[in-house]
Amino acid sequence: MTPPIPVIFDCDPGIDDAIALLGAFVAPELDIRAITPVCGNQPLDRTVRNALQICELAGRTEIPVHAGCHRPLCREPIHGQFHGSTGLGNTVLPEPVKRIEATTAVDCLIDHLGRAARGEGAKVTLCCLGPLTNVALALRMAPQIAGGIERIVMMGGAFREPGNRTLTSEFNVLADPHAAGIVFSAGLPMTVLGLDATHQVMLLPEHVARFAEVSGPIARTVAELMAFWDRNDARRYGSRGGPLHDPLVTAWLLRPDLFESRPARVFVEMESPLCLGQTVADWYGKTGEPANADIVTRVDAAGVIDFYLGLMARYGARGAA
Amino acid sequence: MTPPIPVIFDCDPGIDDAIALLGAFVAPELDIRAITPVCGNQPLDRTVRNALQICELAGRTEIPVHAGCHRPLCREPIHGQFHGSTGLGNTVLPEPVKRIEATTAVDCLIDHLGRAARGEGAKVTLCCLGPLTNVALALRMAPQIAGGIERIVMMGGAFREPGNRTLTSEFNVLADPHAAGIVFSAGLPMTVLGLDATHQVMLLPEHVARFAEVSGPIARTVAELMAFWDRNDARRYGSRGGPLHDPLVTAWLLRPDLFESRPARVFVEMESPLCLGQTVADWYGKTGEPANADIVTRVDAAGVIDFYLGLMARYGARGAA
Amino acid sequence: MTPPIPVIFDCDPGIDDAIALLGAFVAPELDIRAITPVCGNQPLDRTVRNALQICELAGRTEIPVHAGCHRPLCREPIHGQFHGSTGLGNTVLPEPVKRIEATTAVDCLIDHLGRAARGEGAKVTLCCLGPLTNVALALRMAPQIAGGIERIVMMGGAFREPGNRTLTSEFNVLADPHAAGIVFSAGLPMTVLGLDATHQVMLLPEHVARFAEVSGPIARTVAELMAFWDRNDARRYGSRGGPLHDPLVTAWLLRPDLFESRPARVFVEMESPLCLGQTVADWYGKTGEPANADIVTRVDAAGVIDFYLGLMARYGARGAA
Amino acid sequence: MTPPIPVIFDCDPGIDDAIALLGAFVAPELDIRAITPVCGNQPLDRTVRNALQICELAGRTEIPVHAGCHRPLCREPIHGQFHGSTGLGNTVLPEPVKRIEATTAVDCLIDHLGRAARGEGAKVTLCCLGPLTNVALALRMAPQIAGGIERIVMMGGAFREPGNRTLTSEFNVLADPHAAGIVFSAGLPMTVLGLDATHQVMLLPEHVARFAEVSGPIARTVAELMAFWDRNDARRYGSRGGPLHDPLVTAWLLRPDLFESRPARVFVEMESPLCLGQTVADWYGKTGEPANADIVTRVDAAGVIDFYLGLMARYGARGAA
Repeated sequence: MTPPIPVIFDCDPGIDDAIALLGAFVAPELDIRAITPVCGNQPLDRTVRNALQICELAGRTEIPVHAGCHRPLCREPIHGQFHGSTGLGNTVLPEPVKRIEATTAVDCLIDHLGRAARGEGAKVTLCCLGPLTNVALALRMAPQIAGGIERIVMMGGAFREPGNRTLTSEFNVLADPHAAGIVFSAGLPMTVLGLDATHQVMLLPEHVARFAEVSGPIARTVAELMAFWDRNDARRYGSRGGPLHDPLVTAWLLRPDLFESRPARVFVEMESPLCLGQTVADWYGKTGEPANADIVTRVDAAGVIDFYLGLMARYGARGAA
Repeated sequence: MTPPIPVIFDCDPGIDDAIALLGAFVAPELDIRAITPVCGNQPLDRTVRNALQICELAGRTEIPVHAGCHRPLCREPIHGQFHGSTGLGNTVLPEPVKRIEATTAVDCLIDHLGRAARGEGAKVTLCCLGPLTNVALALRMAPQIAGGIERIVMMGGAFREPGNRTLTSEFNVLADPHAAGIVFSAGLPMTVLGLDATHQVMLLPEHVARFAEVSGPIARTVAELMAFWDRNDARRYGSRGGPLHDPLVTAWLLRPDLFESRPARVFVEMESPLCLGQTVADWYGKTGEPANADIVTRVDAAGVIDFYLGLMARYGARGAA
Repeated sequence: MTPPIPVIFDCDPGIDDAIALLGAFVAPELDIRAITPVCGNQPLDRTVRNALQICELAGRTEIPVHAGCHRPLCREPIHGQFHGSTGLGNTVLPEPVKRIEATTAVDCLIDHLGRAARGEGAKVTLCCLGPLTNVALALRMAPQIAGGIERIVMMGGAFREPGNRTLTSEFNVLADPHAAGIVFSAGLPMTVLGLDATHQVMLLPEHVARFAEVSGPIARTVAELMAFWDRNDARRYGSRGGPLHDPLVTAWLLRPDLFESRPARVFVEMESPLCLGQTVADWYGKTGEPANADIVTRVDAAGVIDFYLGLMARYGARGAA
Repeated sequence: MTPPIPVIFDCDPGIDDAIALLGAFVAPELDIRAITPVCGNQPLDRTVRNALQICELAGRTEIPVHAGCHRPLCREPIHGQFHGSTGLGNTVLPEPVKRIEATTAVDCLIDHLGRAARGEGAKVTLCCLGPLTNVALALRMAPQIAGGIERIVMMGGAFREPGNRTLTSEFNVLADPHAAGIVFSAGLPMTVLGLDATHQVMLLPEHVARFAEVSGPIARTVAELMAFWDRNDARRYGSRGGPLHDPLVTAWLLRPDLFESRPARVFVEMESPLCLGQTVADWYGKTGEPANADIVTRVDAAGVIDFYLGLMARYGARGAA
């Protein structure tokens, strides 16, 4: 049997982060070493609280949660617009009993990745669902950790698609463009699930309905989160359905065969008021710089939805992960 | 009978400009008031010479040619890469006898458009095939000419398509982004044929072959220009065919039914080294600013090719326009 | 006898422009060919009206006034803050009878400078008291006029001094940084009277008092303008006195011996929100680019005040110029 | 007796850093808790080695040295031009025996400042002689350490003076403008010794000669470093003498009465290619933002030189600190 893949989830929950985590929690293929919430969709105290609550909801309280950076590197913080006031829509979860670890997210990353870099254990896959502040700081403080990273699988960026927060820019990159610039220029293996990928996988009311049929309290919570997500997006785009942003990272980890990607060099705009946070791809080698990312260009949407609903259905069978 | 549409061609020939002009020359629906070459695909002296030669080739020496601006407003000049050393590929045309007019392109635009603005004659359609320097200067010098412009129909910009000169930017806008910014912010009716449109209409070897069958010296010249254009693009993109950039302006004037467009607000990036010259569209009214352009999103490519070859075939029948 | 120096005043009156013009009007050493008001301290209609009124006040109605550009090249217009609502403080002048010429400021510049460039008469000194929009447009439309410019003597920029409108930038350059960039990169002989020069020459209440003693209606108007100017600056800087910005151009024309300058390469910041419009000097040849300006670094302030009051006193003797 | 002032020296030695440290080493008024070299005048391995060598030269091997960041936050590294190939001119020091600590500079800062912030001991004064990368990272990772900082005393920036590395920018800020931006916006008490201060204190050959008379091996080394420093600057500015940049930080700590400063809001330019790294001061509250720095505007140069030579002379008396 293949040993489980060691992963760390760097995230800013957020509804779709929550769904991504809940999917990962029931996948025995993944060995979740830590969760490192960062300032993003919500201020840090909220993303930390939401991460703790999601662990408790799924009964995965043994996973350590390390608080990350309280703000982006250089720009002022911005937050998500479509996750409700707590970051989890209308869903009310019990006040968490679980506590954060004493060390910071950056320390946690340096510790885990540093050990892997020194050959103490397998390399770790970094799953990035939010702004890249934690990862960028860790890379600047301890560049040798690069050797302990198997791959960065991130949700972020927009290539041919327009942005979802500004005309050109996707939220996670826009929220900390300097951090994204640091990570993209680090020369690490990266898989990028940008809006070009996530807008192919729309969670429609019929999907939510299918899911809500699964019995159990977690399934009901998930269906509630999904329903809130959908409502929001309908208001924005004039059509039903919310793009399954962050859960695509979990899906890619478990079923990479459902995705096609193309290597390219990615640059991040850090200056222009108009284009701040834009991810610009050199698809044809025009700049002479080598590719630094595999950009997901095509997703088997039906396959992903089926797989993900199946994954989540495991909760129905057993209550908690 | 509908009176012919008064037009001025502001251009930087250039192979595809030449084809655009040669198409317009045989269309009785158009009343070509002037040609105003500008620094662009080639330095000004070349684009002027090429404009004169194309008029002579087609026997349209009565159309006045006014020399335009010798360089972009603020940035250093850049020139096209795929038009050969003269701007007309390998095609050698006789030294022109025709001379430019005494007044400049900007004066010519102010004169024609100013008269139309004062109600002396019909409004004029500006057909822009190159950088927008001439038009921008005319608008800044004499803002009242806006009232004499029926519409600006321009080849330029890239929206979902990547750029053709840099990662984000199309040549005509990149070559004078400040001029483009001035024109887009002038509040005029505009139709924009960017790379999203022109990359839908590839001139393939079989098209060139069909055209070369048409008899007559002009047809042979055009086929020669087309063949050079194709060869270049094959080298760039790995597939045959050259996009029919500028001729789409002529086609749009005569057969707008072959095009679909969508209104949007367009902004031009004027600062960032990475994104300079990028055209950014607000498709959904996110910025709250009104649309300033109809962006062509879909082209009936077969229809346009058929129409254009038919148009050019008129030369075969009569030698010159 | 030396023939008078042909000059054109490109300006945006404005109180200190008015004083500069009134000083020039009584100097037989100057042959004022035209006045070309531009959008600057006030919108164009105001600067034009003020220019006409000042000509009438001084009885110099034979000087042609050509209306210039109605707005800056690329940025949105900004206006001066310390000239009162009409641009002439509290001074009320009669509605002008004099009319503007039929041709624009840019045409006027191209006409005069073009003739000089062709050897038809002496080269012309351009005296620039406002944003450089008119001059930049003329240079882009007709680059050959460079050969007809004896020198540009401009009020504008700030080098070691902080800006007077933003932290880094002087108003005239800030109001049209792209135009300033065009002019500074044109390779013309330039003398730059920036804030480093003008802040050396403060018009104090005792100066105004000395001047108010001169008899005659023009003197009274000038004293009134000066008094308003002073009041404003006292409010800004906590000390009495208003810097004699634009009149230094007139003083330099007539008494260059009162000024010291140093050659340098000047660059204009056109992008950064923080530093927009900053003039950056390369005093030591660090960039390897040749000097493009003589920057006035030292002014004999007492000498200039004495000279200027003497100049203006001529009005007392004869009522009008 | 006043207890000694706890300080940490964050630095990038560098000749003038070495002189600053050697001055501090013989001052019993200072309790030097750590030295944290950063990438700056030299790559990190050099600045670390130089820091170790300087400690050994002066017999202060008990001071812990923690290696800092290997490169700036966002921009590519640049290094100093006037410190010779090792960073210490022509001075050859023995290979160091002393070793760096196991923890990084950022950890060291967080540890010391964090304890002070929790009330465990006195607040610490940060003496910053190089790019601010270490300090910026520590502030982003652990914002609560702000409460443990007594004051930041930094050498860096240029206000009315032009830059020493580019036209507008001083080396330390230019080398990591994003880090400087983070530190200046942190709302901490700061004293800034920019080029406006350091160019007032020129180390002339006669000063070096006076110093070389002091007996002892350390004095000879210092005189050698000073002589190299002078030689360099003579080549740059056409006059003898090298500005005593970093030692002014040590002098300010011990003799603040020799300096005058003025509070202002400082902004750092992070975008413009022309002005990158410029420090822009709001002296008059124009922006409405509160002051974030005391900028040293005047130095008693003779007093500082006398004091510093006296300080260094202590080595003569006792060989090592």
